[in-house]
Amino acid sequence: MGEGLRLYGYWRSSAAYRVRIALNLKGLDYVTVPVHLARDGGEQHAADFRELNPQAQVPVLRDGHRVIRQSLAIIEYLDETHPDPPLLPASARERARVRALALAVACDIHPLNNLRVVQYLQAQFPAFAEQRDAWMRHWMALGFAGVEALLAEHPSTGEFCDGDSPGLADCVLIPQVYNARRFALDMAPYPTIVRIDAACRALAPFEAALPENQPDATPG
Amino acid sequence: MGEGLRLYGYWRSSAAYRVRIALNLKGLDYVTVPVHLARDGGEQHAADFRELNPQAQVPVLRDGHRVIRQSLAIIEYLDETHPDPPLLPASARERARVRALALAVACDIHPLNNLRVVQYLQAQFPAFAEQRDAWMRHWMALGFAGVEALLAEHPSTGEFCDGDSPGLADCVLIPQVYNARRFALDMAPYPTIVRIDAACRALAPFEAALPENQPDATPG
Repeated sequence: MGEGLRLYGYWRSSAAYRVRIALNLKGLDYVTVPVHLARDGGEQHAADFRELNPQAQVPVLRDGHRVIRQSLAIIEYLDETHPDPPLLPASARERARVRALALAVACDIHPLNNLRVVQYLQAQFPAFAEQRDAWMRHWMALGFAGVEALLAEHPSTGEFCDGDSPGLADCVLIPQVYNARRFALDMAPYPTIVRIDAACRALAPFEAALPENQPDATPG
Repeated sequence: MGEGLRLYGYWRSSAAYRVRIALNLKGLDYVTVPVHLARDGGEQHAADFRELNPQAQVPVLRDGHRVIRQSLAIIEYLDETHPDPPLLPASARERARVRALALAVACDIHPLNNLRVVQYLQAQFPAFAEQRDAWMRHWMALGFAGVEALLAEHPSTGEFCDGDSPGLADCVLIPQVYNARRFALDMAPYPTIVRIDAACRALAPFEAALPENQPDATPG
């Protein structure tokens, strides 16, 4: 496999999008290995990919012979192996705040909006087809309301989720805002999130990580 | 509020159960503050609790004047502020593996089995009542299959998820196995998980953290 970083992902996977932002913020070169989540019943279920990740999910990062799974674990790994610039603050208290913001999206919104969950509900409940967008927006709205309150009330919030440099929480939040826009969620109740999203999207590492800027993107 | 650790939780919340295990493994004294998730429409929605956590979720840890949210962020915080015994291994590679195991449960199983999700589906789809247990077991089986493969194939797996001391991944896995038993999931396909669960349950820190051993437990 050789040395260097290889990111197995899918252009529209928001978990892969998180890792792309982190890699770009660190200024790390990496090779994109597309795994098409819909084609042929999903390439993530193919035997050779399952050998890399028995969970049959993207993203997976290869660092030489090392295989790292789960987007938040990958970002923490990148932060430990390439500390500059840091994606987590220095103090335990502040690190906990940033991780809690990231987990509020990664555990409390994204898993419910995941393709496999939507597919399961559609298969079980024919009526779900009409309610799919309401389902997506329900969990995004609930999650964003919590995140907005955590950001708006806190002195550590700056131009970004934590101070004036982008970090772990921004890596996770911005892909979720991207999804929210796809599903036409009204973002007016979340002015701090909207402001931070705009600040992030103005930066090259976020721009380069956009789904439509990936080699496997097939918009439309 | 005074000094010391206060854990806001609910006896049957598996996210609170994770934190109880971590506190006990560290040998830390703490005060339990019960938040009843079902009584009076859910005490987590009360104004005074929302002030502590605008996400209206348990657990929340108070450490003196500090408020820490999200179970995985709380456990990482405890590991940083009370390093002995460590709940994460020393190397970046091994830390990533342990975090990925924890996230495989915390992101890919637990959010789908959460009470609020079940309540939403029951409200939207009357047919869901009959399918609730199948829904719970579906996501647990899928998630455990991935976790089993990650554990069974790996030389770092020991008596516990990582080597021969319990750590972060065990804190997250064992509450999920407890839930699986409640929903009568067939555990035969996951022999490594079953073995690690038995090793953990034999230890006093896990025993003391059991839902039925909490002051607010109302079994039956």
